[in-house]
Amino acid sequence: MRTVKITLQYDGTNYVGWQRQAAGVSIQGLLEEVLAPIEGTSVVVHGAGRTDAGVHALGQVATVGLTASLEALTLARALNAVLPADVRVLSIEDVDPAFHARFSAVGKVYEYRIVNAPIVSPFLFRYVWHLTQPLDVAAMREGAKCLVGAHDFAALQGAGSAVTSTERVVRSIDWEDGSGYDRPLVMRIHGDGFLRHMVRNIAGTLVEVGTGRWLPSRVAEILASRDRTQAGPTAPPQGLFVVRVEY
Amino acid sequence: MRTVKITLQYDGTNYVGWQRQAAGVSIQGLLEEVLAPIEGTSVVVHGAGRTDAGVHALGQVATVGLTASLEALTLARALNAVLPADVRVLSIEDVDPAFHARFSAVGKVYEYRIVNAPIVSPFLFRYVWHLTQPLDVAAMREGAKCLVGAHDFAALQGAGSAVTSTERVVRSIDWEDGSGYDRPLVMRIHGDGFLRHMVRNIAGTLVEVGTGRWLPSRVAEILASRDRTQAGPTAPPQGLFVVRVEY
Repeated sequence: MRTVKITLQYDGTNYVGWQRQAAGVSIQGLLEEVLAPIEGTSVVVHGAGRTDAGVHALGQVATVGLTASLEALTLARALNAVLPADVRVLSIEDVDPAFHARFSAVGKVYEYRIVNAPIVSPFLFRYVWHLTQPLDVAAMREGAKCLVGAHDFAALQGAGSAVTSTERVVRSIDWEDGSGYDRPLVMRIHGDGFLRHMVRNIAGTLVEVGTGRWLPSRVAEILASRDRTQAGPTAPPQGLFVVRVEY
Repeated sequence: MRTVKITLQYDGTNYVGWQRQAAGVSIQGLLEEVLAPIEGTSVVVHGAGRTDAGVHALGQVATVGLTASLEALTLARALNAVLPADVRVLSIEDVDPAFHARFSAVGKVYEYRIVNAPIVSPFLFRYVWHLTQPLDVAAMREGAKCLVGAHDFAALQGAGSAVTSTERVVRSIDWEDGSGYDRPLVMRIHGDGFLRHMVRNIAGTLVEVGTGRWLPSRVAEILASRDRTQAGPTAPPQGLFVVRVEY
């Protein structure tokens, strides 16, 4: 059995998220469905991370064990021929059988995009959080500083997770300027891994700083509290993009 | 009665085009529908041009006569509050009653976007013509040259038009480089006005040059023939954008 690494992009708007579910179409389910006739039997696709409903991917990674002998490029073409246009396989490569999309990952980059203007472009509304109240990006950058490094991110973890450790390393958080209805403000976050909803909770918390409701110093207090109820709301899913998974 | 100029953007994917029709939702119909309760009676909105089903606008212009006294910014907000997210009013201004979106226009800029790669990004497929066969952009630029200037564009006019003159002035045609699944090749065309389907027929004709099926010199022969059957196919609507209307 060979192990195949799939790098893919998707517009998450019309999906229930990465993970296969009882109702609705998931990205994992779609991939398994199009791979089954190629393999001649059902397969299980493993994703680098489980994106929620409405979250997008510029560079999601998945692995699958296959016996089918199609050459990687042929397999990518076969998948793209049957997948819907809002899901595209960018590349396929054969990898060591020990390689696993999730467990082999050593880093991830996410982007969270916000349009901070009275209106949002008709071409962007599915891909941003639309906030009309002016945000102080300098304050948001200041608030983000204390999150960089190795920390217990329990306060920024979504409810209902069952992970053994809530410690993670955030390598960087950068806010790229944007303004007007068609140029999003972009938070780019790089870390070794992220807890459930962590990126969206960081965005939601920093927005509370950006509106002036909280001082930038409050973010360190929230982090130290290890208490989810102290942090800001979970930013909506459609602003989030999985940019890259590192191995 | 005041005359109001509306500048708007729309994603044309889900519309039957600009013009009100018996079936389906049109941009003109939408605007008239949201303006009627503000005006207290039905209104007629005039567009700078009739975009076809699936064609997009970055800067479409419309005019409407109103008695309602709402200040321009308030009116824009009121419209955006009720319009669907894929149609946005960018600005509204009071203009001279003699001003007319269509008859006062002295120039227009369109873009036609092509992704020339084996696959197209999940975020772009609604906004480009996807062509997998490699295009020779230098040949397309060469072929486009003869179209610049004042010409009889009868050969590049869509069937079923009933205009009195098929003479138009094309001021420039530029092809902006693009490559890969997420960077479209963009034809930007500037003229005093365009016949029905003219931009899409120019794009379709130049693509025949780009694939090598026709020599660049063939474009001048097509133009001189004044015969629609000589030109290339009409490029699909979703690659076309109304960029700007000049007054």
